[in-house]
Amino acid sequence: MKNDALSLSEIVRHVHAKAADYCALSDRIWTMPELAFDEHRSVAEQIAMLEREGFRITNKTGGIDTAFLAEYGSGGPILGILGEFDALPDLAQVSGLTEHQPTTRGAPGHGCGHNLLGSGSALAAVALKDALSAEGIAGTVRYYGCPAEEAGGGKTYMARAGIFDDLDVAFSWHPSVVNEVATKSTLAAIGAYFRFEGRGSHAAASPHLGRSALDAVELMNVGVNYLREHMPSEARVHYAITNTGGNAPNVVQAHAESIYSVRSPHLPDAERLFERVKSIANGAALMTETSVTVQIVGGCSEVLPNTVLRDVMHENMRRLGPPNFDAADHAFAREITERALTSDNVKASVGPHYASLKEKVLHDGLLPLPAREEVSMGSTDVGDVSWIVPTAQCHTACFAIGTPFHSWQLVTQGNLPAAHKGMVLAAKSMATTAADCVRNPDIIARAKAELKARTGGCEYRCPIPSEVSPYDLRAKTA
Amino acid sequence: MKNDALSLSEIVRHVHAKAADYCALSDRIWTMPELAFDEHRSVAEQIAMLEREGFRITNKTGGIDTAFLAEYGSGGPILGILGEFDALPDLAQVSGLTEHQPTTRGAPGHGCGHNLLGSGSALAAVALKDALSAEGIAGTVRYYGCPAEEAGGGKTYMARAGIFDDLDVAFSWHPSVVNEVATKSTLAAIGAYFRFEGRGSHAAASPHLGRSALDAVELMNVGVNYLREHMPSEARVHYAITNTGGNAPNVVQAHAESIYSVRSPHLPDAERLFERVKSIANGAALMTETSVTVQIVGGCSEVLPNTVLRDVMHENMRRLGPPNFDAADHAFAREITERALTSDNVKASVGPHYASLKEKVLHDGLLPLPAREEVSMGSTDVGDVSWIVPTAQCHTACFAIGTPFHSWQLVTQGNLPAAHKGMVLAAKSMATTAADCVRNPDIIARAKAELKARTGGCEYRCPIPSEVSPYDLRAKTA
Amino acid sequence: MKNDALSLSEIVRHVHAKAADYCALSDRIWTMPELAFDEHRSVAEQIAMLEREGFRITNKTGGIDTAFLAEYGSGGPILGILGEFDALPDLAQVSGLTEHQPTTRGAPGHGCGHNLLGSGSALAAVALKDALSAEGIAGTVRYYGCPAEEAGGGKTYMARAGIFDDLDVAFSWHPSVVNEVATKSTLAAIGAYFRFEGRGSHAAASPHLGRSALDAVELMNVGVNYLREHMPSEARVHYAITNTGGNAPNVVQAHAESIYSVRSPHLPDAERLFERVKSIANGAALMTETSVTVQIVGGCSEVLPNTVLRDVMHENMRRLGPPNFDAADHAFAREITERALTSDNVKASVGPHYASLKEKVLHDGLLPLPAREEVSMGSTDVGDVSWIVPTAQCHTACFAIGTPFHSWQLVTQGNLPAAHKGMVLAAKSMATTAADCVRNPDIIARAKAELKARTGGCEYRCPIPSEVSPYDLRAKTA
Amino acid sequence: MKNDALSLSEIVRHVHAKAADYCALSDRIWTMPELAFDEHRSVAEQIAMLEREGFRITNKTGGIDTAFLAEYGSGGPILGILGEFDALPDLAQVSGLTEHQPTTRGAPGHGCGHNLLGSGSALAAVALKDALSAEGIAGTVRYYGCPAEEAGGGKTYMARAGIFDDLDVAFSWHPSVVNEVATKSTLAAIGAYFRFEGRGSHAAASPHLGRSALDAVELMNVGVNYLREHMPSEARVHYAITNTGGNAPNVVQAHAESIYSVRSPHLPDAERLFERVKSIANGAALMTETSVTVQIVGGCSEVLPNTVLRDVMHENMRRLGPPNFDAADHAFAREITERALTSDNVKASVGPHYASLKEKVLHDGLLPLPAREEVSMGSTDVGDVSWIVPTAQCHTACFAIGTPFHSWQLVTQGNLPAAHKGMVLAAKSMATTAADCVRNPDIIARAKAELKARTGGCEYRCPIPSEVSPYDLRAKTA
Repeated sequence: MKNDALSLSEIVRHVHAKAADYCALSDRIWTMPELAFDEHRSVAEQIAMLEREGFRITNKTGGIDTAFLAEYGSGGPILGILGEFDALPDLAQVSGLTEHQPTTRGAPGHGCGHNLLGSGSALAAVALKDALSAEGIAGTVRYYGCPAEEAGGGKTYMARAGIFDDLDVAFSWHPSVVNEVATKSTLAAIGAYFRFEGRGSHAAASPHLGRSALDAVELMNVGVNYLREHMPSEARVHYAITNTGGNAPNVVQAHAESIYSVRSPHLPDAERLFERVKSIANGAALMTETSVTVQIVGGCSEVLPNTVLRDVMHENMRRLGPPNFDAADHAFAREITERALTSDNVKASVGPHYASLKEKVLHDGLLPLPAREEVSMGSTDVGDVSWIVPTAQCHTACFAIGTPFHSWQLVTQGNLPAAHKGMVLAAKSMATTAADCVRNPDIIARAKAELKARTGGCEYRCPIPSEVSPYDLRAKTA
Repeated sequence: MKNDALSLSEIVRHVHAKAADYCALSDRIWTMPELAFDEHRSVAEQIAMLEREGFRITNKTGGIDTAFLAEYGSGGPILGILGEFDALPDLAQVSGLTEHQPTTRGAPGHGCGHNLLGSGSALAAVALKDALSAEGIAGTVRYYGCPAEEAGGGKTYMARAGIFDDLDVAFSWHPSVVNEVATKSTLAAIGAYFRFEGRGSHAAASPHLGRSALDAVELMNVGVNYLREHMPSEARVHYAITNTGGNAPNVVQAHAESIYSVRSPHLPDAERLFERVKSIANGAALMTETSVTVQIVGGCSEVLPNTVLRDVMHENMRRLGPPNFDAADHAFAREITERALTSDNVKASVGPHYASLKEKVLHDGLLPLPAREEVSMGSTDVGDVSWIVPTAQCHTACFAIGTPFHSWQLVTQGNLPAAHKGMVLAAKSMATTAADCVRNPDIIARAKAELKARTGGCEYRCPIPSEVSPYDLRAKTA
Repeated sequence: MKNDALSLSEIVRHVHAKAADYCALSDRIWTMPELAFDEHRSVAEQIAMLEREGFRITNKTGGIDTAFLAEYGSGGPILGILGEFDALPDLAQVSGLTEHQPTTRGAPGHGCGHNLLGSGSALAAVALKDALSAEGIAGTVRYYGCPAEEAGGGKTYMARAGIFDDLDVAFSWHPSVVNEVATKSTLAAIGAYFRFEGRGSHAAASPHLGRSALDAVELMNVGVNYLREHMPSEARVHYAITNTGGNAPNVVQAHAESIYSVRSPHLPDAERLFERVKSIANGAALMTETSVTVQIVGGCSEVLPNTVLRDVMHENMRRLGPPNFDAADHAFAREITERALTSDNVKASVGPHYASLKEKVLHDGLLPLPAREEVSMGSTDVGDVSWIVPTAQCHTACFAIGTPFHSWQLVTQGNLPAAHKGMVLAAKSMATTAADCVRNPDIIARAKAELKARTGGCEYRCPIPSEVSPYDLRAKTA
Repeated sequence: MKNDALSLSEIVRHVHAKAADYCALSDRIWTMPELAFDEHRSVAEQIAMLEREGFRITNKTGGIDTAFLAEYGSGGPILGILGEFDALPDLAQVSGLTEHQPTTRGAPGHGCGHNLLGSGSALAAVALKDALSAEGIAGTVRYYGCPAEEAGGGKTYMARAGIFDDLDVAFSWHPSVVNEVATKSTLAAIGAYFRFEGRGSHAAASPHLGRSALDAVELMNVGVNYLREHMPSEARVHYAITNTGGNAPNVVQAHAESIYSVRSPHLPDAERLFERVKSIANGAALMTETSVTVQIVGGCSEVLPNTVLRDVMHENMRRLGPPNFDAADHAFAREITERALTSDNVKASVGPHYASLKEKVLHDGLLPLPAREEVSMGSTDVGDVSWIVPTAQCHTACFAIGTPFHSWQLVTQGNLPAAHKGMVLAAKSMATTAADCVRNPDIIARAKAELKARTGGCEYRCPIPSEVSPYDLRAKTA
């Protein structure tokens, strides 16, 4: 191959050539926020762009209506770039404001910046395709359209269906307030509904004839709180009550439901803990003479970091430099910081880097690699991909330092120039690192060896049972 | 006065003269079920009828939009007849069926027969007016349009406003499965929301920064369940969770709310118990570092039975005889009994009379007066009226034996001929007893003496604080 | 038979003849308080007296070391008189004081007056024997030495062994603050230990390895408190924690135990409720990954009152008149009332008779028979006897009005002259009523017919399973 | 000073000279196990030995009966060596067995090896004194007799009294299964009783009149379990119920008590958490209409490691080599390992060193210094000393690998030759390191600078309030 066809500067050139189009795509998706598993218009927008670029489209991959695969080229290596595009409920917000103002009250909004995520990943895939095809270099570029990261775990279902199995490497990113290679593992997670059925009765006249499902929901949670002392410190169990059996105090509540999320740094530990939570649910049913059914509705494996890919990506980010924020970007960031963010927000968003970043409003550097691998107390379905194929991720500064995830403050920044700049940097980081893998197959070999060492040779096992469909839940609530 | 102008047979004649009109009114209200404090159309229908009869209308009595007073005549005695007309949520049902079939899914329905209640009371008032005016007998007839018996207690608010103060006697009734004079006291009740405010946080990443309002709601209820062992057996505390802080398990719930109903045979005991429940709420707030606000949203006093009026009414009912059910009435009653009611329903509906009534499907007799006064484990805002003025109530057979209150089985019978017959009997019972009070003022004197003895001379004290409005609650949920 | 051999005055004469001896017996037992199932010396004292009177002694009846039977005469009718003699823990008290002063700190004391109970019953048996034998009247007199009324229910075990089966009537009494025939039913009761086993661990270093049995004890009780709302109002469930797993906060408690008492007006209801409590225990074990074993340690049936015998006994008590308290009796009673009893004590001890008794310190009358049968919210193993044989009981005034059971205030009065006088009245009441049964066999026939009607012909069924021994428990604690 | 007077080999010589005497002292204390604050005979034994060596004795330092100070020499530096000697309840065990066999059932035993701890420290102090006095080198050697490490924290009370304030350095050690310098911090801890007072009542007849203190104890713990989700992961709260209000299920328990231990890596965090636990106790009191009093009974600060001293001590331990275990030592260790220890015990005792140590039964090496400072999930009152004066500790192999603390397996090895050898090594490690501080005052200067840096210049603040005495608790239980 021509030596510099896949060089950093060449890849950057290809990214820049189409950056404006994909920023526009991101902005369109920002204006049509769609909830998990309902991202039909967002998917159509992306497919249209990628078809135009010559990608071959596979719809509804893994049996999920809003999952798709866009592929270009042939032969090895097979390079996967993952995109997300689902929004969050009740976060609609007018763009570019420093105060809370919904476009439509109660409507969804892109509170996690997934409009940028999918578009930036697609941009990386297109730029990589352009570089390979310009010189006829062998290799397959795939863009994975992954729905429902926020609820249920689209990639987990896709992983269960085997559609990542033949990948050589995978890349993703997430919009952030800092520039860094992602280095942390995450928590494996299992989510499930616990639905209790009792017997209604008049709460004053004949409470002794009733069997309260709401009692069961509460007793289950009392039991879970007793469990907390006797589970590992880094595990997590949390919940919401999703059906209280109605608002009438004068009936014994016959139906009630809660949802629990059970997490641990290692999936088998999360599964063991989930079994204990199920036992508690059964105990609560016994205590109240109610019955309980458990419905798993989501799950994801912990992320297995890959230091081989991480180091290559970090070096590329070092060479690429931070986004080129201008005075207007800084001015708005400063304004929103002053009016809508607190120092607690800043601390929460940058953690151990607070001392060095607290004076800034936009991150104009690159965070160093940490001394040791840590666990982020969150979960992502990228974890499932990372068990199948060596995976690297980066974060780029798209929002003012201190902007919390899942907030209107993030939504309002989601289609501004600063966000575009962060997105373009992410596309460059992924595309250059993928290009390095083509140029230097040894990277892939070493990355795969590392993955094998980390899994101990264990096959990927999906945390969502084979009989569970993402649409079970929807059926329930229809 | 002419001796027989107010005789039983004369009153019966007046009732019959207008019975069809008021059965039609009841049927119209049955088709327009309106929830508590929202009974605008039902009120308009009644006012139109009563204005036509020459009653003077006072709208929005006691500051409540859907409360009204219709008055006829002048001078003493002042005779009050109370009507209700609010429906219940989610009980819409096609008429005359033996299976559950909503007219509109989720819509309200007249699950407590209040369409009959208001119309039957209005019919009694009109017949009484006709009797008095025919002969020019002095006396004032009032119909009280009382909203929101099912939620909040319309009469309690009206009592607080003083609009029953100058009455000499009051009458009411309730559609039932048996014919009897009401003899039981009821439970005094206080209802209140407990609203907890905490601090949200990510439930996996920083649960230690969150303060869970949902924890507080649950701990309050744990505390209340511990209270149960240490409160009098005949008291009641029950609840619903009205806000769980959202359906997301991965946030610490910052806002949550429950509603409690606290009841006891005597209002002061209910109030003392309510103070203990408030202490538990404060304890739950302390335990969780949340804050709590308490909002009283309803209340009612226990019914003070009046044996003087009761005995007069019982004698009238004995003379009037049961509703004149025909073969078609019995046929439908038998059908619904066989298809949609259980023997448990029958037991629950007739209690100690099960042995004598279990073979019947419609009650064609009159239950005897009981040996001793008992407490019904329910509550009604008629209780508040009964503290101010001697009050009598009857129940008449409008539905098949075994029909539960607040059920579709009741709704489906609510506009059938049997229901009309029961309603007309109730109108006769009330009107004849009121007429007896006019003919024989000593009844009123003795009834008032009994009331005074029962209260021990204590003034009526409204269980709803003066600053609470029925619309506070609505404001909250808007 | 000679007409007056069994007359009231003759029986009274026989009682008086031996009264001093049996008062002395009572005083000796007062000085040697022995706990349930350990009443060896108290038993020996009684046996010695009764052997001297010519009674035939059967030791260890029903397989219980401290149960015995003393029998005299032959042929029918067979008249049983029941005695109790167990003391209570930690109630040692110097006699005749108006302040708390233990003889020995922590030692047992006769806090329920069972020293009087057994001795008074033995006196009745002896007087009855003397009357029968004086004239050679046929009939068998039995004194049942019944241990452990306070814990476990000695009579229940004896009933299980069948030793009351051939009795014609049974009598018992209880020292009290009033004179009356016992008319109330009681609660059936089941008592059981719930013993949880978990796994110890260091509570700071490795709490996740521990499984807390103490958590299980607490969660079981949380569950039981949730049950309270959904059980009949007149049922009772109460408990104590009998093993907390130790006093060290820095270990996860591996062993813990509670004892529950489950009561209801009818044994089958108590049994059903006990099953629900066991389910809750199983639920708590599931919740905590511990195991639970349930050990029933006692139980008793509800008392079936017998109005035939009751009326005969009431008439005798009316003719016998109250105890003949003198000025010294009144003086001490007044002193202890003023110094050591409260008006709450008085209210609690005389209940509905408070208004008529509050001015008195010793009861010098006879309470009237009540208008209707009520349930006393207590339990006694006399209940089991009453299911097998018509049984009557009386209460006599032995203590100052207001003296609580199970208190030092009772102990201190337990061997004073007033107590002796009450005891002698009880002996007369039982002996005269038994004599009436001999003179007039129709009483027995009618009493048996009533019993049959009350049980509906159901056989007695012992609430303590056949495999449970009173010594199981002792084995545990050794 | 003569160059080699304080050399390692010279110190070793001094230790060896008296080792046999102090091993004998340890064995005597092993045979007279005394509980916390009751160590009168153990104190007398030590004082006798130290007086014989010419130490000046100060009795009852800090106002504690069994605390003492033994001092030798004059001038600086002042070198403190800390000794402990309290035993644990219910751990009496025959020596040298591989099965559980108490000397006296229920008697105390040296389950934490404090017989060795105090004697080894005294041996170090004496050897150091001998070395200094042999050559007339200036310096003060102190042995601190510190009672009640296991309960209450003797050193914390001593620290509060200021008796460590003029020390230059302090040393201690703990018998262990490995040889290592102690490098971990510990948890700061606060211990307190929560005593609830309610109102007794008959649990069947009048439960509504009772206010249950046992309910309050349970609700407090429910509240604490809800707190667990919302406190930092590395904090610890654990408890025991120390008074359940009695074993009778038929009374409402009027008195009940629990003890809580609240721990966190930093004392201020533990104190904040303790305030939250107190709020929960107050909440439980509010919920139950009981009152609560809180009695702090102990506390300790986290250990501040001192890397300057740690490194000097580690170098000395490296030079000293492991204990010189012989074939008999190994044979017994193997026997107890096989018969009385599990692989879980081994894992728990050596943690991350399991792979390298699992084949051994006695540790014959020295563990390396760790890469980073960790927190041990335990607490010790050495922590309080470490806030006042630079402190170093070592652990030496006295017991078979896998021997748990607070077990009969440890007691049975506590006076065997292997334990003596470990104790002598500890004495050498402390004495040589202390000698280095005398020879090279710069060590002290640097150690003090490190301490100052670690405290940030904050003064030591005792976690036990000034008004709390260790004898408060005893008063309570007398």
